[in-house]
Amino acid sequence: MNEFEKVGVSFVKDLRRIVGERAVIYEDREALEAYSSDESGGVYYSHLPEVVVKPENAKQISEIVKLAGDARVPITPRGAGSGLAGGAVPIYGGVVISFERMNKILEIDEENLVAVSEPGVVTNDLCKKVAERNLYYAGYPMSVETSFIGGNVATNAGGSKVIKYGNTVHHILGVEAVLPSGETVRFGGKRRKDSSGYDFVRLLAGSEGTLALFTKIFVNLIPLPGKTVDLLVPFKSTEDAVRNVAVAIKEGGVLPTAVEFIDKLSVKLGEKYNNVVLPFSDTAEAYLIVQFEGKSREELEKIYVNAGKALISHGAMNVFVADNRTNSDKIWKVRRNWLEGIKAFDPYVPTGDVVVPTSEIPKIIDFIKILSKESGVKIPVAGHAADGNLHPAPMKPEDMNPAAWKDYSEEILDKIALKAAELGGAVSGEHGIGFIKKRVLAETKPAQVSIMRSLKRVFDPNGILNPGKLFDL
Amino acid sequence: MNEFEKVGVSFVKDLRRIVGERAVIYEDREALEAYSSDESGGVYYSHLPEVVVKPENAKQISEIVKLAGDARVPITPRGAGSGLAGGAVPIYGGVVISFERMNKILEIDEENLVAVSEPGVVTNDLCKKVAERNLYYAGYPMSVETSFIGGNVATNAGGSKVIKYGNTVHHILGVEAVLPSGETVRFGGKRRKDSSGYDFVRLLAGSEGTLALFTKIFVNLIPLPGKTVDLLVPFKSTEDAVRNVAVAIKEGGVLPTAVEFIDKLSVKLGEKYNNVVLPFSDTAEAYLIVQFEGKSREELEKIYVNAGKALISHGAMNVFVADNRTNSDKIWKVRRNWLEGIKAFDPYVPTGDVVVPTSEIPKIIDFIKILSKESGVKIPVAGHAADGNLHPAPMKPEDMNPAAWKDYSEEILDKIALKAAELGGAVSGEHGIGFIKKRVLAETKPAQVSIMRSLKRVFDPNGILNPGKLFDL
Repeated sequence: MNEFEKVGVSFVKDLRRIVGERAVIYEDREALEAYSSDESGGVYYSHLPEVVVKPENAKQISEIVKLAGDARVPITPRGAGSGLAGGAVPIYGGVVISFERMNKILEIDEENLVAVSEPGVVTNDLCKKVAERNLYYAGYPMSVETSFIGGNVATNAGGSKVIKYGNTVHHILGVEAVLPSGETVRFGGKRRKDSSGYDFVRLLAGSEGTLALFTKIFVNLIPLPGKTVDLLVPFKSTEDAVRNVAVAIKEGGVLPTAVEFIDKLSVKLGEKYNNVVLPFSDTAEAYLIVQFEGKSREELEKIYVNAGKALISHGAMNVFVADNRTNSDKIWKVRRNWLEGIKAFDPYVPTGDVVVPTSEIPKIIDFIKILSKESGVKIPVAGHAADGNLHPAPMKPEDMNPAAWKDYSEEILDKIALKAAELGGAVSGEHGIGFIKKRVLAETKPAQVSIMRSLKRVFDPNGILNPGKLFDL
Repeated sequence: MNEFEKVGVSFVKDLRRIVGERAVIYEDREALEAYSSDESGGVYYSHLPEVVVKPENAKQISEIVKLAGDARVPITPRGAGSGLAGGAVPIYGGVVISFERMNKILEIDEENLVAVSEPGVVTNDLCKKVAERNLYYAGYPMSVETSFIGGNVATNAGGSKVIKYGNTVHHILGVEAVLPSGETVRFGGKRRKDSSGYDFVRLLAGSEGTLALFTKIFVNLIPLPGKTVDLLVPFKSTEDAVRNVAVAIKEGGVLPTAVEFIDKLSVKLGEKYNNVVLPFSDTAEAYLIVQFEGKSREELEKIYVNAGKALISHGAMNVFVADNRTNSDKIWKVRRNWLEGIKAFDPYVPTGDVVVPTSEIPKIIDFIKILSKESGVKIPVAGHAADGNLHPAPMKPEDMNPAAWKDYSEEILDKIALKAAELGGAVSGEHGIGFIKKRVLAETKPAQVSIMRSLKRVFDPNGILNPGKLFDL
């Protein structure tokens, strides 16, 4: 498999006929380079597409797919390029289909509590638009300000609110998609239940563009939650912080919206990058950020007083309450800009993304600490502790050359991913597999990957859709 | 396809070796008959299995599956037999695998908020057990008192609480399953997020035993909701009732847990059957039952006062508030025992299960009314109005003979199902397809069924697992 043809002049001519002259990038190296990598680190993980095409609708995508299928040219779909696993990198060249022009919110249906969106809509824009109508899209990922809704569905993105709301797939009622055959098929839609055959919406979510290309997305909406409160909770040790995740989940009396973990090194770098100072940052080894939602101030107060007392009695150094936007933003800034903060000091930093059952967080954190010591590599960690999803970010030792670091950092991240799987977790909780994590996926889910391959062949017998992602055929 | 071998004596001997003498039923017609039908109506839709086997664990199931695969004997998995679409009916004979002895709750993991259950646990028992620890399984179907959790997952069962909590699949974190190859594979588990390849948990949920047999189920738990209140709301016309579904969803300020619809004919039959009288039952043409959850009495009061006022101002005849168990049970009795109530007066009644976008409820109700008039058949309707899932139940005209009624009632239900799909819904919202709805599924989802067939072949190349369900190969 994976023997593809090169893009030729007549192929490009056909693409231009389909989408128009200006929606095709060809033979312009600088312009093509913008489509050669994602946030996983262009320095290591980039590959130039032969041609980029920017369709506007399902019909054009269908024609492109048929054209590429006939010509045996590989297709790599691309959202905002904010992925962290290389899913949008065209590792076999060929065509990149960029969804950037399919950026319309087609409908906000208040009666059915559904929004219909094109895949290239920035998720944050969607959130804002529905908020204007007092509605809420709860599949909110952390990268909401840049990522596209289509990419969120393709990776089944997570974020901080999964403990309460579940990940992206929980909020997708349907998709319209172009299959590798060129056929456009609607799966699901505005109905809220469906027990009529295999659930392809949920199969396609998280399939990272290897089975189909989304052209419309039906998003579930709920009433906008009332009010939120954020607690910033410093701890003397990471052990204390990690032990208190369960306390934060249980003692407020309601499920928190988020329980985020961030360690001292991350905070220190974040403070510099964001030009802020967090309380206790000299003495605290780790923090939790705990968020609750409630219908009223009074209700929230009851919740955070309970949770706060419990956290203090279980070893928190203090509990800082932010119940307004300004204070809340200060708390979240360091966590939200975590990766940018580290990258400002080490452009070579890769990000891991592993998930474990929440009870196993202490073990995976211990493992990372020991690995850091043994390897002589600093590994700041932050993550969505409420759902066991952690992001270790090994930093290049100053004296190591970038080429050697690529291999060494991959080795470190692979070890952490394998350990997470061993603890009952998985090698990715929210970023996806792309091509960077193929090895560890194959190692931890051999039986499952074998079924994935067979499934892939059913959908895409020529293997032209995002080849080399998730697994090799 | 579907050319199967008959069960022979040596096959039965092998089964007895695997599960023990007493866990096999063979050549005992009366005992076999108990496994020949489900709640879809044994009088029409039954077929005798050749042999019934009651395994105790995954290893036995794996051996049975391998044995049946080698012998080309079809396997029909069976939970509680409470299905309404014939999914558990062994229409090609062969082996029925009954999960009745796999009835242990293996673990309630309070730290990870996960229960691990065998498939043959009665869902209601699971709910009670976790409630003892102040936890809640939110994938609660209406048939909770009889159905098995394994069957709930197999049909992706719905219920009344989908508007707030989603259907079964939203609450399943993982399954262990025996594949048609005999291999036992774990998909998912105690981790709460996973973006590592195709999501087989969600593909297997709702696949009605055609792809794999569940041997363990990992169920998501949440803190037990505080308090509930139920509103019984009579309306002068079905139009008024249906129009007020949106009012009930929006005007309380929080999502209701349930908005149920029940029409006059259903109420009348239900009153007789349950020996109760509902207020306004002589003058009301339809009712909504609206349920809210809240942390405190005060919060709930605010919610139901708002919702109640809005409902009255939109045409409700009155709003009866039940905020204690006794009153609440009275309200729900008629709705919960709806089908039993009708069956007491017409043993030939079949139940439909269609879903539409909630905005289309008026149209599907109108359609049913007109169809009722045109066909001269009474069609009481109840359903989960909050998610557009309605159950029409055509009643046999007294002068029609049962054989003619089978065809006539199927024709009526098919028409309603096709109309639901045309309105943007689906031919089943929660009961599944079984074999009774194959026709309408094929008609409304031709492209999707074609992919389903291909997928089925990947998992089950010999087609021995629940053959003839969902589609014909």
